[in-house]
Amino acid sequence: VDDGGNLGLTTRRIETLSDGVFAIAMTLLVLSLNLPENTGQENFHDLLSGQVHVFFAYVLSFLLLAVFWIIHHYQFKRIKRTDRVLLWINIVILMFVALMPFSTSIVGDYPSEPLAKGFFDMNLFILGLLFYVNWRYASGQHRLIDPNMPREKIEQVARKALVIPIVSLLSFALAFLITDYSSVPYLLIPVILYLPYFRMSGSSVS
Amino acid sequence: VDDGGNLGLTTRRIETLSDGVFAIAMTLLVLSLNLPENTGQENFHDLLSGQVHVFFAYVLSFLLLAVFWIIHHYQFKRIKRTDRVLLWINIVILMFVALMPFSTSIVGDYPSEPLAKGFFDMNLFILGLLFYVNWRYASGQHRLIDPNMPREKIEQVARKALVIPIVSLLSFALAFLITDYSSVPYLLIPVILYLPYFRMSGSSVS
Amino acid sequence: VDDGGNLGLTTRRIETLSDGVFAIAMTLLVLSLNLPENTGQENFHDLLSGQVHVFFAYVLSFLLLAVFWIIHHYQFKRIKRTDRVLLWINIVILMFVALMPFSTSIVGDYPSEPLAKGFFDMNLFILGLLFYVNWRYASGQHRLIDPNMPREKIEQVARKALVIPIVSLLSFALAFLITDYSSVPYLLIPVILYLPYFRMSGSSVS
Amino acid sequence: VDDGGNLGLTTRRIETLSDGVFAIAMTLLVLSLNLPENTGQENFHDLLSGQVHVFFAYVLSFLLLAVFWIIHHYQFKRIKRTDRVLLWINIVILMFVALMPFSTSIVGDYPSEPLAKGFFDMNLFILGLLFYVNWRYASGQHRLIDPNMPREKIEQVARKALVIPIVSLLSFALAFLITDYSSVPYLLIPVILYLPYFRMSGSSVS
Repeated sequence: VDDGGNLGLTTRRIETLSDGVFAIAMTLLVLSLNLPENTGQENFHDLLSGQVHVFFAYVLSFLLLAVFWIIHHYQFKRIKRTDRVLLWINIVILMFVALMPFSTSIVGDYPSEPLAKGFFDMNLFILGLLFYVNWRYASGQHRLIDPNMPREKIEQVARKALVIPIVSLLSFALAFLITDYSSVPYLLIPVILYLPYFRMSGSSVS
Repeated sequence: VDDGGNLGLTTRRIETLSDGVFAIAMTLLVLSLNLPENTGQENFHDLLSGQVHVFFAYVLSFLLLAVFWIIHHYQFKRIKRTDRVLLWINIVILMFVALMPFSTSIVGDYPSEPLAKGFFDMNLFILGLLFYVNWRYASGQHRLIDPNMPREKIEQVARKALVIPIVSLLSFALAFLITDYSSVPYLLIPVILYLPYFRMSGSSVS
Repeated sequence: VDDGGNLGLTTRRIETLSDGVFAIAMTLLVLSLNLPENTGQENFHDLLSGQVHVFFAYVLSFLLLAVFWIIHHYQFKRIKRTDRVLLWINIVILMFVALMPFSTSIVGDYPSEPLAKGFFDMNLFILGLLFYVNWRYASGQHRLIDPNMPREKIEQVARKALVIPIVSLLSFALAFLITDYSSVPYLLIPVILYLPYFRMSGSSVS
Repeated sequence: VDDGGNLGLTTRRIETLSDGVFAIAMTLLVLSLNLPENTGQENFHDLLSGQVHVFFAYVLSFLLLAVFWIIHHYQFKRIKRTDRVLLWINIVILMFVALMPFSTSIVGDYPSEPLAKGFFDMNLFILGLLFYVNWRYASGQHRLIDPNMPREKIEQVARKALVIPIVSLLSFALAFLITDYSSVPYLLIPVILYLPYFRMSGSSVS
């Protein structure tokens, strides 16, 4: 039954690969920051301030990847076993994590292009959805989690995983309406995650 | 005899370096995705859709590296000791893993060039063959594996390692016949790996 | 109370992600070293020596990131628990660590541009300040550290964390006065850290 | 006395950061492989074969970094404690490890330029010398190693560390005489390391 064990891939192994890909993707975001060559014709101050969009995209992506990294550990703290399906869900997750530096760089380079913003939002939407699928698969019929985990708690983790997909879908829609401000919904994420509905009931959790 | 121990390099050490190189190579694949500079003359939608080959190459390489990563752990779960030969087989494996971002980028940049496709297929062929050699060396005369591992099981692991070399050789041949569709055989890998002939007999394996 | 535990993020987890980001950022610094294309028109010796500023920036940034890495472990050796605030302080720390290759490359490319130097110094100032905040938050009311840690020792760790912010602020001011030599204060860091005032009293520490 | 412990930096910590930097530097070597843009004017076969020097540089650097990685573990298997000096020797080692992708790329881009070859050889010479210094410092007066390690064995480890500095010095000299073939001495490294004079007496070592 525990196919993952057969493959020699425990949850710890998947977490190690994931930590690596997350750390590298977060650090590679910096490659989207690129000043034009020094042509001597332009003012350095103008060069830097012309990159404000790029800096904003860098900060936003870094923090969103950090949120996903936290969600990853949050789910894997509760997942006790792995199987082949979970393994491949996670590989596809990592594929979209590794794509983030690209999505970030096009948003920075084409700040007023709806399609660029849309591509970025779609990347985040799929990533968020995959985390939801990851948890639904692992927790369905208590497949890979603690068999005694109460239904209520399973739902809390699932709700938490839905925040980013919903926000990025909203941002996706805005990309084609008010391109320049379409990323505003992402600022809501910390607010939403602290609403009582999404919070874990801290006192009852060890 | 256990030269690897003398070097201070246990199988765990090799696995750690390998995990690092795999994670980095998989994440560096994203560098092959590069939109041309914003010249203002071209339509962004055309720019993105002109990159379809590059996206396909990214996804294919990412999933193939993931398969190799799984095979790596699959073999190393069964390898109990290391020696100098195994160490160097693995270093050459990592050299071809690290080459993948380059092979992927030329396939994406020159999609209709038979030699580019051939280079990519050759990279995968050599990588696959090295995994086969890795296992044959480790399991020959039960050199570095559990002395009680049955012959039948050793052969199963070896068969599994042959799937990618055979598929990539087929793809290599097609590269010079039908360049645009020469990567199709790779889609067969998951199908083949689930044929009873290649599957581990799940029930008898702990 | 120990929200970090709830998230499944122990201090060990944060240290692992941090080690990854530090190692990658330190190695990515090398990307700021870039010889111009071989045009055949210029003397190679001139090309290399034209990069002296870039090499200096590389060495300086590498050593400063190493100092921050040491400070990170120095603080986390004393931090026993994590919570949500500490987690996010550390994520922002990593965001400014990951920014260092960019700051380094602009200092190398625009060596006589006060704003480029200033940007680099600001990056270091914020990074240093965040480490100070990290420690103040963790040690305030012995929040996340050993409850028996003496007041005197807490202050020593805090003093140590103030060295880089002060030096980089000085360097920031010099950037607009004597741009070419504004990095000189950084050479004082090792000297300062060995002054008795900043040194840990080695004998009384296990 | 054990200042490293005070810093919270055990030998394991240094090994972890080193493994990260080695894995990243080895994988970043691939960035030195870069086909020119597809201009449609040149034959792809010519483009690829024009990169033979670059491929050779890639393979050589990858294998040399692997040798250094092995030497690193070989020494650290015997080093039991750390102190501030050892820590900084290792940080400078990592700085020259991280420089290798740059040195490799200039050798690949300027294959017939003596200074480019000389830069590459100098990088390796300094790296090799630092490993020799690392061991001499750690083993001098049995400072950081097992107090019972016999003199004879200490010398064996030291001899081993001298192979690369000597070979790279020879290659450095040749760079200014026969530039195109100046890397030939590196091929001697495996031969030399297997001479009885340099080999560990395998039987007497656990």
